[in-house]
Amino acid sequence: MNKNSSNTMALAPNTSNKRETVCIFGTGDFGRALGHKMIQSGYPVVYGSRSTQISNLIPKDAEVLGHAEAAQKAAIIIIAIQRQHYNFLTPLAEVLHGKVLVDISNNLKLNQYPESNAEYLAQLLPGSKVVKAFNTVSAWALQSGTLDASRQVFVCGDDVEAKQMVMNIVRALGLTPLDKGSLLAAQEIENYPLQLFPMWRFPMFLSLGLTAFFFFYCVALDIIYTYIYEHNDFSFFIAITIPNRVCPVMALVLLALVYVPGIFAAIIQLYRGTKYRRFPDWLDKWMLCRKQLGLIALAFASLHVVFTLVTPLRAFASWRTGKGIISQALNNKTEPLDHTKAWLSDSYLALGILGFFLFVLLGITSLPSVSNNVNWREFRFVQSKLGYMALILCTAHTLVYGGKWFLSPSAYKWYLPNIYILSLIVPCAVLVVKFVLIFPCVDKPLTEIRQGWERNPKYSE
Amino acid sequence: MNKNSSNTMALAPNTSNKRETVCIFGTGDFGRALGHKMIQSGYPVVYGSRSTQISNLIPKDAEVLGHAEAAQKAAIIIIAIQRQHYNFLTPLAEVLHGKVLVDISNNLKLNQYPESNAEYLAQLLPGSKVVKAFNTVSAWALQSGTLDASRQVFVCGDDVEAKQMVMNIVRALGLTPLDKGSLLAAQEIENYPLQLFPMWRFPMFLSLGLTAFFFFYCVALDIIYTYIYEHNDFSFFIAITIPNRVCPVMALVLLALVYVPGIFAAIIQLYRGTKYRRFPDWLDKWMLCRKQLGLIALAFASLHVVFTLVTPLRAFASWRTGKGIISQALNNKTEPLDHTKAWLSDSYLALGILGFFLFVLLGITSLPSVSNNVNWREFRFVQSKLGYMALILCTAHTLVYGGKWFLSPSAYKWYLPNIYILSLIVPCAVLVVKFVLIFPCVDKPLTEIRQGWERNPKYSE
Amino acid sequence: MNKNSSNTMALAPNTSNKRETVCIFGTGDFGRALGHKMIQSGYPVVYGSRSTQISNLIPKDAEVLGHAEAAQKAAIIIIAIQRQHYNFLTPLAEVLHGKVLVDISNNLKLNQYPESNAEYLAQLLPGSKVVKAFNTVSAWALQSGTLDASRQVFVCGDDVEAKQMVMNIVRALGLTPLDKGSLLAAQEIENYPLQLFPMWRFPMFLSLGLTAFFFFYCVALDIIYTYIYEHNDFSFFIAITIPNRVCPVMALVLLALVYVPGIFAAIIQLYRGTKYRRFPDWLDKWMLCRKQLGLIALAFASLHVVFTLVTPLRAFASWRTGKGIISQALNNKTEPLDHTKAWLSDSYLALGILGFFLFVLLGITSLPSVSNNVNWREFRFVQSKLGYMALILCTAHTLVYGGKWFLSPSAYKWYLPNIYILSLIVPCAVLVVKFVLIFPCVDKPLTEIRQGWERNPKYSE
Repeated sequence: MNKNSSNTMALAPNTSNKRETVCIFGTGDFGRALGHKMIQSGYPVVYGSRSTQISNLIPKDAEVLGHAEAAQKAAIIIIAIQRQHYNFLTPLAEVLHGKVLVDISNNLKLNQYPESNAEYLAQLLPGSKVVKAFNTVSAWALQSGTLDASRQVFVCGDDVEAKQMVMNIVRALGLTPLDKGSLLAAQEIENYPLQLFPMWRFPMFLSLGLTAFFFFYCVALDIIYTYIYEHNDFSFFIAITIPNRVCPVMALVLLALVYVPGIFAAIIQLYRGTKYRRFPDWLDKWMLCRKQLGLIALAFASLHVVFTLVTPLRAFASWRTGKGIISQALNNKTEPLDHTKAWLSDSYLALGILGFFLFVLLGITSLPSVSNNVNWREFRFVQSKLGYMALILCTAHTLVYGGKWFLSPSAYKWYLPNIYILSLIVPCAVLVVKFVLIFPCVDKPLTEIRQGWERNPKYSE
Repeated sequence: MNKNSSNTMALAPNTSNKRETVCIFGTGDFGRALGHKMIQSGYPVVYGSRSTQISNLIPKDAEVLGHAEAAQKAAIIIIAIQRQHYNFLTPLAEVLHGKVLVDISNNLKLNQYPESNAEYLAQLLPGSKVVKAFNTVSAWALQSGTLDASRQVFVCGDDVEAKQMVMNIVRALGLTPLDKGSLLAAQEIENYPLQLFPMWRFPMFLSLGLTAFFFFYCVALDIIYTYIYEHNDFSFFIAITIPNRVCPVMALVLLALVYVPGIFAAIIQLYRGTKYRRFPDWLDKWMLCRKQLGLIALAFASLHVVFTLVTPLRAFASWRTGKGIISQALNNKTEPLDHTKAWLSDSYLALGILGFFLFVLLGITSLPSVSNNVNWREFRFVQSKLGYMALILCTAHTLVYGGKWFLSPSAYKWYLPNIYILSLIVPCAVLVVKFVLIFPCVDKPLTEIRQGWERNPKYSE
Repeated sequence: MNKNSSNTMALAPNTSNKRETVCIFGTGDFGRALGHKMIQSGYPVVYGSRSTQISNLIPKDAEVLGHAEAAQKAAIIIIAIQRQHYNFLTPLAEVLHGKVLVDISNNLKLNQYPESNAEYLAQLLPGSKVVKAFNTVSAWALQSGTLDASRQVFVCGDDVEAKQMVMNIVRALGLTPLDKGSLLAAQEIENYPLQLFPMWRFPMFLSLGLTAFFFFYCVALDIIYTYIYEHNDFSFFIAITIPNRVCPVMALVLLALVYVPGIFAAIIQLYRGTKYRRFPDWLDKWMLCRKQLGLIALAFASLHVVFTLVTPLRAFASWRTGKGIISQALNNKTEPLDHTKAWLSDSYLALGILGFFLFVLLGITSLPSVSNNVNWREFRFVQSKLGYMALILCTAHTLVYGGKWFLSPSAYKWYLPNIYILSLIVPCAVLVVKFVLIFPCVDKPLTEIRQGWERNPKYSE
């Protein structure tokens, strides 16, 4: 083994147990916050600034010098200035040659510039080793010391040693560096902090829209209709009864929508006879947000469960129970147990419980730490087998519960169907098509296509 | 610092911001899928193929050449061919000398060959740098872009730089590389995608078997016996009543089975007087699946909780409540509150709730991301202290609930004990033995043995 | 690319597929356990010992030699001896020159020595490459093979190659190495296994104290007062009724306490006119345990939910329901539905369900694997927006439920307020102050201060 090279690679030569000086260009908010934190962690910090007058803003133990002098004092220079001022660094190219420059900048918009800030810096100063880091950390978090969110700092750069030096500083500040590879990853790292749940946006809007629709549909049929035609004021249904009608409908519809793109994909592949063509864009996007749709469906299902379980605690429910029992008592008779009713009530409860149980299992396996611990075979087993099982159980639960409504005229107030009936359209359609797709005469060609077979291999010419 | 060596280590020399060409040997399904994905990510791809005729199957922007010409164009060659054809690479040894060869192959069975495919490749071409990667990713997932499962790609290899190059490609494809060390890890990585929940198999079969046994036992005693001797048809008990009898029994028995191997281990160590001998194989296996047993027990306990909470919603329950109240009303009297009954009912409910609460805490700490954040002392505190506390509370819950059944002759239909009584055998035995083991006269020698003391240190000769 | 250097960097030269010999100094418990495990994993192990007489304690396949001879046989030497005996290594400095020394020692107390054991070892033997590792693994776990806790092994060291060699061994033993950077991290790694939930200590004691206070307060008012003045024995309330009064109070108070430090911080910053001064220590500590406070609050809220849901199953509840219905039946009348009561009961149930739902979402985002997958913007959105929403909903739930108690004299037994009233003080105060803080005239200067503006920039001089 080449002992010499390994010695030169020793990143923190701490025979003296002292940290190396770090230079920070720029005395803005983030530069000061980072300097504070570094001084707390034992690093000597020197600021590079145009004027050394504004030094009173700067942490007490830091030195403030001109840019060139400051840069000479340290091997690592943190560039805490904005991209539009990077060109002022070009005259310093000679001083910065061979130094590690840490680009910590963020943009205001996604993909604001053609190349990432770090790559732009590397082009301006080809003699320096540019490392992208720290842009995902907030100055406020550094300052207040309350890093209860992600402690991950994404680091990328072309020079492995420079990256190691920066990662050591990251670790010394109590953060966790995550190596994202070469500087090509800088664009992605710069876009990262600008996102606000990008994958959740469409599923959120879709479910908000559907929820509003179903809610007002129910309000119209259950409260307004009853008030107009039966002169009963059931306005308090808004609090629990109607949410508990909307939640299961949303849960079932969204769960079914998770499985629709897979079915579309299968049909498209069967039709095209190949898997080597991209799906239409809308299908791609739909496929990518299936996990989010499923989790929102799970949230609705959980709300449905809790709303259902509190039923006996409601004043309305105990009034209704009491009324039923008193009317029997006043008539001096006890009704015998209705076995059909007992079977139906127990069946849909049991189906619902099992469906919800599988649904929760699916939710747990979608936790990042759990899904990282299963391989593809296991993941597909859980997601397709268990997922379809949950869909079947939940659809059956709804059918058994709401089945009697299909033929009852009271379910068609204002000639509109009850929402139970509406909610069953998508899941039943999905299950029927899926049932067709698992027939051997359809499944066999599909499997072959997915293993790379092509009906008409000339398409790509 | 040795700047020269650090410059030569720059892995992705992207002054030109362009990705290096990647060569793929083999135009099978996975080779094409990977090529598609790489072209999408900006890599020039060149295929090495026996015949350049079948080029119409291949992604449009890829070049197709003979093996030798293709290999010369790239520093990284992905070997997308099957192990049994590896020997055709030996004539190319000279061209492949110094190149990075990425072995992406999988086998059909666990440990199919004496050495891993990657090690076999390294033996065939000792001049090349073999890296194992990508075998855990499915072609279908690469193709459809829906990588919602694990994005982890296990990478191993003896050459650090070659591994870095491959890991950069992995990152560029939007996947997360995980360095598993030297090529010795290839066997494990090749076995990984072939497994389907290996640790869950035995606990699953055990609990399915026990569930079936308890279910039919209950059907016999609660439905068939009642039908024959009391002429009551309670067949609808199959949906909720009986599952809600089986679930708590399964939960309690499985939770107790989690603690049995620890007790056996302590007894074996006390008997042998040393910890430096392996446990019997069955005990080792049992110990390794304790987590899975515990999680299945938690699933049964959760089902029991939900099944119990829906009780007031059942038609049968409201019929029974009404019947009781009407019979009181018809007799013109109100029964006073039975304080013993109130105490018993509230006690077993409270014990059950607290036991379930601790059980859920145990389940949460077994999530990979949580257990990675606790140290050994904390983990053992949670698993042994909280675990035994949960077992004690759940056993007490069952005892208080079912205690009255022990002496009642109606609990012994057909001279068979009620399943409450059966379910208490294992947990009570575990708690009694554990109680003996924590006596100082037993605990002291056990602790010494676990700290390395040996009664008869000559055993190993 | 410099192929030569890359070849010399090949860490596990396994053309021969054999593992390199590892030397272990010290034949204590951990040394033996580690040796056993390494032999199982295919490493030849040689022990360095003062006397080769005690060889019968040592794994059968290991060799035992004097320290110097043993050290010469291996490139990696594991120092399984205690820190106080490290100085006996100084005479071996020449033999150990250039070797990788793995410090696996732990201390008995936090920060027992001024420098970490590994740094002390590096000072004693400056020619060797010291790597800290394995100290977080328990000998018992290595021995019994049941590594169901964290498989993470923290590794740190100044020499990258040496660290890689140790990390390869860690991986070969089936554990996961985690690079913590240079040897400066050794202190932290040595302190790690000595901690028992350090961040949980204060929140736990606080909530235990508050729970005890509220519990006895309720026992006094609900059981003792009722027994003395109304001669009713409600002692069974201890099991469910009183816990279900204490749990929601604790959940609400602790949830409010999570948001108190943020409000104090805002007031302090507004008063000081700068963010560049540290908060008082008590505030810093409070801020750091907010997550733990929130999770304990969630635990209390969950218990409250389950305690509430089992209400209809309690003997007391069914007795009370029956009593009410029978008294109506005996009076030959059915009470009409009280719409106000129906509205109130449904409202507080719905508010509670939604508040609990948001609370659970907050809990899920605090799982390490989930919070690692969100960026700062997303984390702050969830924690502040959703968190305050949950606090508002839960406070409203309590107000609607307990509002009637404020004016009722029966709520002031012994002139003491009911705990509902007590529980509302902190959350209402928090919400009122927060409401003031979001007024533009207060929010604008605060935002500016947090972006780095200072009212009196001379403070630091």
